[in-house]
Amino acid sequence: MPELTRTLAEFATGSITTTPAARLVTSLSALDWIAVGRAGVEEPVSRILREMVLEEGGTARAHLFGGGAAPLRGAALVNGTVSHALDYDDTHFAHIGHPSVAVFPAVLAMAESRDAAIVELLEAALVGMELSVRVGLWLGRGHYQAGFHQTATAGAFGAAAAAGRLAGLTPQRMAQALGLTATRAAGLKAQFGTMGKPYNAGLAAAAGIEAVELVRRGFDANPLAMEGEYGFGATHHGADEMSALEGLGESWLFDQVSHKFHACCHGLHAALEAARSLDIAAPEVAQLSVRTHPRWLSVCNQQAPSTGLGAKFSYGTVLAMRALGHDTARLDSYSDALCADPRLIELRDRVEVIGDDSLSETQAHLSLLRRDGQRQEVSHDLMAPLTLAEREERVRAKAAKLIGGSLADEIWALLRTGGGAADLALRLSAS
Amino acid sequence: MPELTRTLAEFATGSITTTPAARLVTSLSALDWIAVGRAGVEEPVSRILREMVLEEGGTARAHLFGGGAAPLRGAALVNGTVSHALDYDDTHFAHIGHPSVAVFPAVLAMAESRDAAIVELLEAALVGMELSVRVGLWLGRGHYQAGFHQTATAGAFGAAAAAGRLAGLTPQRMAQALGLTATRAAGLKAQFGTMGKPYNAGLAAAAGIEAVELVRRGFDANPLAMEGEYGFGATHHGADEMSALEGLGESWLFDQVSHKFHACCHGLHAALEAARSLDIAAPEVAQLSVRTHPRWLSVCNQQAPSTGLGAKFSYGTVLAMRALGHDTARLDSYSDALCADPRLIELRDRVEVIGDDSLSETQAHLSLLRRDGQRQEVSHDLMAPLTLAEREERVRAKAAKLIGGSLADEIWALLRTGGGAADLALRLSAS
Repeated sequence: MPELTRTLAEFATGSITTTPAARLVTSLSALDWIAVGRAGVEEPVSRILREMVLEEGGTARAHLFGGGAAPLRGAALVNGTVSHALDYDDTHFAHIGHPSVAVFPAVLAMAESRDAAIVELLEAALVGMELSVRVGLWLGRGHYQAGFHQTATAGAFGAAAAAGRLAGLTPQRMAQALGLTATRAAGLKAQFGTMGKPYNAGLAAAAGIEAVELVRRGFDANPLAMEGEYGFGATHHGADEMSALEGLGESWLFDQVSHKFHACCHGLHAALEAARSLDIAAPEVAQLSVRTHPRWLSVCNQQAPSTGLGAKFSYGTVLAMRALGHDTARLDSYSDALCADPRLIELRDRVEVIGDDSLSETQAHLSLLRRDGQRQEVSHDLMAPLTLAEREERVRAKAAKLIGGSLADEIWALLRTGGGAADLALRLSAS
Repeated sequence: MPELTRTLAEFATGSITTTPAARLVTSLSALDWIAVGRAGVEEPVSRILREMVLEEGGTARAHLFGGGAAPLRGAALVNGTVSHALDYDDTHFAHIGHPSVAVFPAVLAMAESRDAAIVELLEAALVGMELSVRVGLWLGRGHYQAGFHQTATAGAFGAAAAAGRLAGLTPQRMAQALGLTATRAAGLKAQFGTMGKPYNAGLAAAAGIEAVELVRRGFDANPLAMEGEYGFGATHHGADEMSALEGLGESWLFDQVSHKFHACCHGLHAALEAARSLDIAAPEVAQLSVRTHPRWLSVCNQQAPSTGLGAKFSYGTVLAMRALGHDTARLDSYSDALCADPRLIELRDRVEVIGDDSLSETQAHLSLLRRDGQRQEVSHDLMAPLTLAEREERVRAKAAKLIGGSLADEIWALLRTGGGAADLALRLSAS
């Protein structure tokens, strides 16, 4: 077995030393994943996937977002898709994608069916998400730029690793599972903007589960199918960037994952974060200038949106929302009625947006001119780390907004104090 | 909708004019597919896939090779894998792969669940297989050479087309199904020689079914995801060879499919076919020289195999088998005992194999020196068309050897005289 798969398989099956940050952030991502998934159950793509899988029936082994239960492969497919339906889940900029929506659906289904403890579930999830981040780095930006959706591709390997760890695969069998995943992992960025995007996350979760379910029954795949001349990396425009493995098992990259704190386009987040440190209130605003990376101008700079969806792609609207006291973290804050509010329109039109290629895609700069003539300047970079305490407070607050404070607290308590994975899985269903 | 997907979707949903050859060859491929699938149910990969899907349970909508029934996605996955487990199914050299094992599992499952007639099933299968051949040509040899297994990739589009035709998709919905398949289609040649190869066929069948099942419930994918800058072709080293669409709907390429008539490596088939026109009998052979494309020397020129599996990769062994009256079409002809037979060994050692790059990969030349000093020279090219009558006779004879004459005749009668798809599906199960 050559270096890549062997190293990944040993990491995925071996004992690990976690850090408090890695443990806390994994728990936060689990809470965030459940909250975002529950909030997405009414999306049309969620309804369609649930309907297909529930009509299939079968032995109920894992709960589904929105109620009901299904066999493992179906549950992973549904829960991956549902939890990415709102595109409000976590993002890892090194992985270039969304680790939680690929890994948690696979590992929770496996944990529930095996009666595992939440602590084992979280450890396996951390290992799987870390592995998917490393695979994302190994594939590199060329893979993404060619058109592959790393949430789906790198994510599938993470899902296999996490589910296989819980299933107790040996390193040799884990290498088989990763090799089998190499022939199944798929997902194109061409689906962005369609139901195919969340489906790609479901695909990754289902692929990982399927590989593990087959390998643990004795399936022999090619354990070299990730690497080498005709392997997954080579066929899929991968960079074969072996430095991606540096420090694996000793240091953690997963805990740099970003949680989204605004229910709108990612391109607006840096500006909204910058606005948090402005004492901004509507009556005092003479003008607000936003500098942002020029790429975002074609993505999320709608001048006068008339729908809630349009509002999610409009600098002027979201910054006016904030000044007027609307909560940009809540899904229901974005509405057609909001867009028609004269106070919002008047304020929105005082926001000026300027492309500035000295900024990165994760940076924004705000310049506020108050009616009293004072000017305030603030900047934010989404890459700037939050303290652990601040992350916890903000993820829990977001979850509370999405699913209610008492349920969010209940899930958080389970994640932090243990119990069985089945207790957690029950929380996917509507109460 | 641009040209490729629109053209394919209209073909897949429109009325067609078949030819007697296309109809007959489709029926022959159906018979061949069932016979080869039934013969493969005891392979380890077949057992593993069946076990996983039967353990899932669910609403039984489609029969499985080897008994039992499952929901559509599971049935397609199992039946695709099982029918490719022996690698004894049909091959299309333009598609560069095995059209039947991707398309029939999907279309038969859909037909059975919808109570379709066999005549509709065969029409949809023909359309799906023709489409997969055209997609194979559109992707081109570069896709295959990069490492993709067209049975899995081109096959998935054919499976979606065939199943979607039976499900009554409109051209617009069919384009969505093809676009959704583009994000799911996968399969690497890196799995050749492992259980992953037949699994790739199952993947294709399952992907096609899943796309149709989602699209008919309202799933909106990107209907342009096959083509264009970031589409399936571009991401997967496709040639975008639009001449692949020439004559689509007017002329048929599917009926050039090759059926395998020997249960051994494809590289041995031209030599075995050439030997059919030699009056070869063991005692008269002084020496037999085989000229073949040099590529095969590293694939199937084992000098002294000691196992039944090794015999399937040995020119000397299979030609000696023929001279000794063993039937190379039968699976059970290849055994360890055979390899130890002194008569076979003595004869095998009189076979000389010579690489000759003036021959194509589908050609072989035999030169037989008899003990009486006479020499006979014969050649065969697998691309040389058989008459329809000869194809029918040989496919039916092969099926009879694999599953018994009466069952083969029963299936053939169903295929040629109609009836319901469910009658055919019942024949997948062990009697």
